Amino acid sequence: MKLCRYGNVGEEKPGLIDKHGRIRDLSGHLHDLGPADLSPRALQLLRDICLEELPLVSGTPRLGSPLNGTSKFVAIGLNYVDHAKEAKLAIPDEPVVFMKAISCIMGPCDDIVRPRGATKLDWEVELGVVIGTKAQYVSEADALEHVAGYCVLNDVSERSYQMQSSQWDKGKGCDTFGPIGPWLVTRDEVADPQNLGLWLEVNGKRMQQSNTNAMIFPVAKLVAYVSRYMTLYPGDVIATGTPAGVGVCASPQVFLKPGDTIRLGIDGLGEQTQTVKSRD
Amino acid sequence: MKLCRYGNVGEEKPGLIDKHGRIRDLSGHLHDLGPADLSPRALQLLRDICLEELPLVSGTPRLGSPLNGTSKFVAIGLNYVDHAKEAKLAIPDEPVVFMKAISCIMGPCDDIVRPRGATKLDWEVELGVVIGTKAQYVSEADALEHVAGYCVLNDVSERSYQMQSSQWDKGKGCDTFGPIGPWLVTRDEVADPQNLGLWLEVNGKRMQQSNTNAMIFPVAKLVAYVSRYMTLYPGDVIATGTPAGVGVCASPQVFLKPGDTIRLGIDGLGEQTQTVKSRD
Repeated sequence: MKLCRYGNVGEEKPGLIDKHGRIRDLSGHLHDLGPADLSPRALQLLRDICLEELPLVSGTPRLGSPLNGTSKFVAIGLNYVDHAKEAKLAIPDEPVVFMKAISCIMGPCDDIVRPRGATKLDWEVELGVVIGTKAQYVSEADALEHVAGYCVLNDVSERSYQMQSSQWDKGKGCDTFGPIGPWLVTRDEVADPQNLGLWLEVNGKRMQQSNTNAMIFPVAKLVAYVSRYMTLYPGDVIATGTPAGVGVCASPQVFLKPGDTIRLGIDGLGEQTQTVKSRD
Repeated sequence: MKLCRYGNVGEEKPGLIDKHGRIRDLSGHLHDLGPADLSPRALQLLRDICLEELPLVSGTPRLGSPLNGTSKFVAIGLNYVDHAKEAKLAIPDEPVVFMKAISCIMGPCDDIVRPRGATKLDWEVELGVVIGTKAQYVSEADALEHVAGYCVLNDVSERSYQMQSSQWDKGKGCDTFGPIGPWLVTRDEVADPQNLGLWLEVNGKRMQQSNTNAMIFPVAKLVAYVSRYMTLYPGDVIATGTPAGVGVCASPQVFLKPGDTIRLGIDGLGEQTQTVKSRD
């Protein structure tokens, strides 16, 4: 299934994408799409609904993040060899874990707002992993069973904030720095999360182009690893790292400015488009 | 007011501490203590309740974190000169911001569980600041008006995880690493947040003893600063950093082991006691 949430900010309703790409209204069955709706049993109840009988949603409403109620937004740094190399950083022996603030989450095509004083606003296309069932000390072999599905996300970063101290979180969690969606694609529809092409364009120019098969630590490893350090709960999201092609590593460096348009996508998971706005 | 939540994990009821230190049951007025209950107006409604008419809670129930529904747990590193010196790190020019996982929050006297493989489990008494109203680009002069109140917290840390990569979050957000409470003491009852003694003992031995007047960046500065990078919402918590006396900086180093007991407190904000348990 391709699950989504559509409508104005704070008023999103749950929806399902049908085979023609149209939104079907799920609000007769669910109040919202949140952590409790991501278990295998809850997802099966949704699968059992006859899609053709759900009302078609007219027009092209705004999409929100495809899930509400995320309690943790964990991110992994330097998880593609080519990105670690372009950043001139050592290839890590273990996943590098940091956190994005929940308050940065927004819809896939909402505006990215450049914070006041920001000078090095950058992009990072990433595969997002959404947890479906509690994961605590899970093995790599069992890890994917705790995944509800996958999504596109842009790990938007202000490099001047990220690098101002030793800790990256300040430059990773600003408001609007976490577009998620358009859909949450359930795990059964992603044959191999380690074989998905992903790409990102700025103003029509292709900047990132890679495949999740180039990850240093695959999804199953990441879920198992993080679950050793903090229990993962339904609705938690893991941003699995970005491949080469970010602005801070370009020569010369390129950063986002108001008016710029970003498009990004992952095979089978849909596309995002954001426009950069100034805060003031 | 001294607000609390009492009862078993997941079943906590809201309460108020009366002048004799007894818990009065607030559940006739509130379902729980969460973000929506922390605004000046909501707090005034609680103040208007006649405390003597609230039912007394019998016995000594477990206390949970004094607020539910925290969406961000922001933490500040190296905010006391003596701690930066003992850690042999430079005194920061700006606050060092990192994040603790929400899932680490627990009651003030719950057990600290040493994660599997942990070898350097450590303590950090800190003043916790609880946000009452949305704060976005607030000035230092206005910042405290966005604070609902203050609490004791222990920024429990596993140093081997914290230092394994450049990013500290992995060693700061493990389950049980965020005891908060016993109470949320509303701002009107804290005459000066920059003049509060704070201390911590391990197995009866005083390890930390300082005063919030030794902070490098005071609370007002921290709230204003963080609000430039991410909007703070009601219920968000800021851990304001720890003074000298942590185990990793002792000579020789001292770390917590199963069976150890920690007591910590802050003037007017109450005390916590935790026992360390092994995960296995």
